[in-house]
Amino acid sequence: MTIRVGILGARGRVGQTIAEAVAAADDLELAATIDKDDNLQTLVDNNVDVVVDFTTPAVVMNNLEFVTTHGIHAVVGTTGFDDDRLEQVRQWCNNSDAHVLIAPNFAISAVLTMEFAKQAARFFPSAEVIEMHHPNKLDAPSGTAIHTARGIAEARAAANMDPQPDATDQSLDGARGATVDGIPVHAVRMTGAVAHETVIFGAQGQSLTIRQDSYDRTSFVPGVLVGVRNISNHPGLTVGLEHYLDI
Amino acid sequence: MTIRVGILGARGRVGQTIAEAVAAADDLELAATIDKDDNLQTLVDNNVDVVVDFTTPAVVMNNLEFVTTHGIHAVVGTTGFDDDRLEQVRQWCNNSDAHVLIAPNFAISAVLTMEFAKQAARFFPSAEVIEMHHPNKLDAPSGTAIHTARGIAEARAAANMDPQPDATDQSLDGARGATVDGIPVHAVRMTGAVAHETVIFGAQGQSLTIRQDSYDRTSFVPGVLVGVRNISNHPGLTVGLEHYLDI
Amino acid sequence: MTIRVGILGARGRVGQTIAEAVAAADDLELAATIDKDDNLQTLVDNNVDVVVDFTTPAVVMNNLEFVTTHGIHAVVGTTGFDDDRLEQVRQWCNNSDAHVLIAPNFAISAVLTMEFAKQAARFFPSAEVIEMHHPNKLDAPSGTAIHTARGIAEARAAANMDPQPDATDQSLDGARGATVDGIPVHAVRMTGAVAHETVIFGAQGQSLTIRQDSYDRTSFVPGVLVGVRNISNHPGLTVGLEHYLDI
Amino acid sequence: MTIRVGILGARGRVGQTIAEAVAAADDLELAATIDKDDNLQTLVDNNVDVVVDFTTPAVVMNNLEFVTTHGIHAVVGTTGFDDDRLEQVRQWCNNSDAHVLIAPNFAISAVLTMEFAKQAARFFPSAEVIEMHHPNKLDAPSGTAIHTARGIAEARAAANMDPQPDATDQSLDGARGATVDGIPVHAVRMTGAVAHETVIFGAQGQSLTIRQDSYDRTSFVPGVLVGVRNISNHPGLTVGLEHYLDI
Repeated sequence: MTIRVGILGARGRVGQTIAEAVAAADDLELAATIDKDDNLQTLVDNNVDVVVDFTTPAVVMNNLEFVTTHGIHAVVGTTGFDDDRLEQVRQWCNNSDAHVLIAPNFAISAVLTMEFAKQAARFFPSAEVIEMHHPNKLDAPSGTAIHTARGIAEARAAANMDPQPDATDQSLDGARGATVDGIPVHAVRMTGAVAHETVIFGAQGQSLTIRQDSYDRTSFVPGVLVGVRNISNHPGLTVGLEHYLDI
Repeated sequence: MTIRVGILGARGRVGQTIAEAVAAADDLELAATIDKDDNLQTLVDNNVDVVVDFTTPAVVMNNLEFVTTHGIHAVVGTTGFDDDRLEQVRQWCNNSDAHVLIAPNFAISAVLTMEFAKQAARFFPSAEVIEMHHPNKLDAPSGTAIHTARGIAEARAAANMDPQPDATDQSLDGARGATVDGIPVHAVRMTGAVAHETVIFGAQGQSLTIRQDSYDRTSFVPGVLVGVRNISNHPGLTVGLEHYLDI
Repeated sequence: MTIRVGILGARGRVGQTIAEAVAAADDLELAATIDKDDNLQTLVDNNVDVVVDFTTPAVVMNNLEFVTTHGIHAVVGTTGFDDDRLEQVRQWCNNSDAHVLIAPNFAISAVLTMEFAKQAARFFPSAEVIEMHHPNKLDAPSGTAIHTARGIAEARAAANMDPQPDATDQSLDGARGATVDGIPVHAVRMTGAVAHETVIFGAQGQSLTIRQDSYDRTSFVPGVLVGVRNISNHPGLTVGLEHYLDI
Repeated sequence: MTIRVGILGARGRVGQTIAEAVAAADDLELAATIDKDDNLQTLVDNNVDVVVDFTTPAVVMNNLEFVTTHGIHAVVGTTGFDDDRLEQVRQWCNNSDAHVLIAPNFAISAVLTMEFAKQAARFFPSAEVIEMHHPNKLDAPSGTAIHTARGIAEARAAANMDPQPDATDQSLDGARGATVDGIPVHAVRMTGAVAHETVIFGAQGQSLTIRQDSYDRTSFVPGVLVGVRNISNHPGLTVGLEHYLDI
């Protein structure tokens, strides 16, 4: 049985990309495409099972109130969810059969990198993160790299590990990177790059490297489809794609 | 409380390396070192909790019969275990409080690479394995690479995935690698290399790369110590270090 | 003094990308854009110094006859030049002050990879090439990888090097790759990949890796601009961007 | 005709490794091995053509005075040469037929990485250096990485390139690495690592990566043999193995 999918923000670049991917998938059906001047009732009229919402903070709450009220699940990549908004969405879910997935990052290779890094952390005395992005990025390191480092640090703390070995006593400023909860994080800015993250772990005689490359701006698509296909098994509100990966 | 460790094959290169690592670890105590002319009773006299056995197929069964009979756990890297031998060891475990871990590969980065590859496989249409070893290696691809490819293939089959996309219709012989259960595996032989394995996964707009490098012949040490530290929690016979990693 | 650039094939995707890059460069001026229904005389009327021709085999010879006759240099990425065509272009150059650069590959990172591989080859007993492309590619290995392997083989032959060490005597078919003049070449096909090439060299205790990644279809632009900027220093016909790199 | 090689510091670990490599090479003959209590006259008595000197700053000048006086070439990896010492060696060379090569780094993969980085620099708007070493290293970044960055910076300056693009305006301290003459340099410290250097270059739609891995402490051997084999063609004093590579 196919899943009937509605796209909110369907005329945006992201919405169009997702609509194409849904249309191309055998097990999914593109049942409705909605943009700002369209009536949400169209979702109901077309028996949509799941909406994908990549819209704006200004309209996403209105969208979610509507779909949860009508028992339609929602996979949400829109930004701007603070604790108050999440609590509101959680209540709407409690009062309906609709499930909601909100994720800051749908690049499945990035999500897996973070998860594997957490799993591997306690086996290696050394761990560092190197991220690489295009030179127009304003912040360094990336939010993903910081998040990855925190996950490693938490896993190390849970395993009562010693601080990382590092005999450096003579260093140029910045050479050893930024320190995020004890984990060195290095940010490279490179013309031509898109978004890339490498985590290196070292133990006696060996290293383990987990690397993620996003080559273009469609890298969220596979993760969104994982969300669409599995949302019926995840009641209530879920924050973070990692909870859908069963790893 | 420290764990009292005995080394079997203590005068071999591997045994010496493990003895040094045990002696250097705060939570472990090197309680006995045994080689071929020594009496196994020394293990009992010194209240050994766990032995590490990197000996030979010729003597390992005798060692294991002795230690299981005396309630001493065993972490075993010796080769040559067929089904009959494993069944015998399982019986000895059943008749005692001793636990046994037998693993073909203690390089923890390699074991994690295989495990992460299995976890990631179902999210990526494409997966290939590239292993690299020194040029004196007789077999290609390596047993580890074949094992990794099989793990990926099983995970793909369990998720009912389509065969990998590949439009190649004009190819030099061998260009696309060996095929192991549908997964291309490439073997590189390189002066100066030790043992390295890379698994690449691809999905729309992105790739995930998991890479393991063994830089020298002590890379089994961290995995052996994981075995020693956790064996009391794994009753009976366990085959494969991955079962000790809780991932 | 700025260089006045004309684009042939200006309404094609490639032509448009080059036109944008020319317009954005301080030292270049976009002086004329020509497509199939436009008159080549426009190039003369606008005092074009150099044309860039990414058109088709059907029209490129006509274009080149015109521009060489009028003393306008040409940087050519159009395909389909056989020996006869090259000889014809060479004659036109001899009879004029126009210079012509014809290159099969303008991705400067790929051209440099090939050149560095040739330079490094004689210092390393082992060398292998791994290329990675999207799964819609029809041939394996890529032309670039074959070309790279041949360059390495020639450098090894010139230095009277022994064949590569390789003790493999038990191998799955294809595991050791295709052999191009004695150099193993491995082709990976990966959803999400664009065009990537890695050359690995090994010597005692070390390796050297040269890797090229093309992330999108604009990667020819920097090489074309190198051609445009340097063509006045390269009289006659030149085949291959490597001759413009002064390395 | 074989080259007759003498080893100074022959009982040290490095000297022994070189002696083994010389003995194993068909075109070289191990003619004399000298350590601190041996008489240098042995070199003359055994008709040594070239000595390899990996000794100490305390004895190397005495060694070089002796060998240059006797017309024996010298390949020198001993440290501690300041301008005064180099000038002294230059004079000795001027007064004899002996040639001397003094190099701070004989890892040929590292020397090539630096040379290729210099060649590539002017074609790429972005360039960064990432080095990785074992955690017992005292300085960060490594001297090799600093030297590499300087070479890139000089090549960029010679080509009148603009500063690297970098829009970062919000950064954790150290995230963007140390800056060496405008080139970001990142230092990773990793248990199990030996000595590794990566240079990444970026241009529109592409990147070029040059990576060097030293896997063990014998990685100087191939470079020393390049020195021994080519020293007869390089009169006088040469500082740096790169001048022997003909690239």
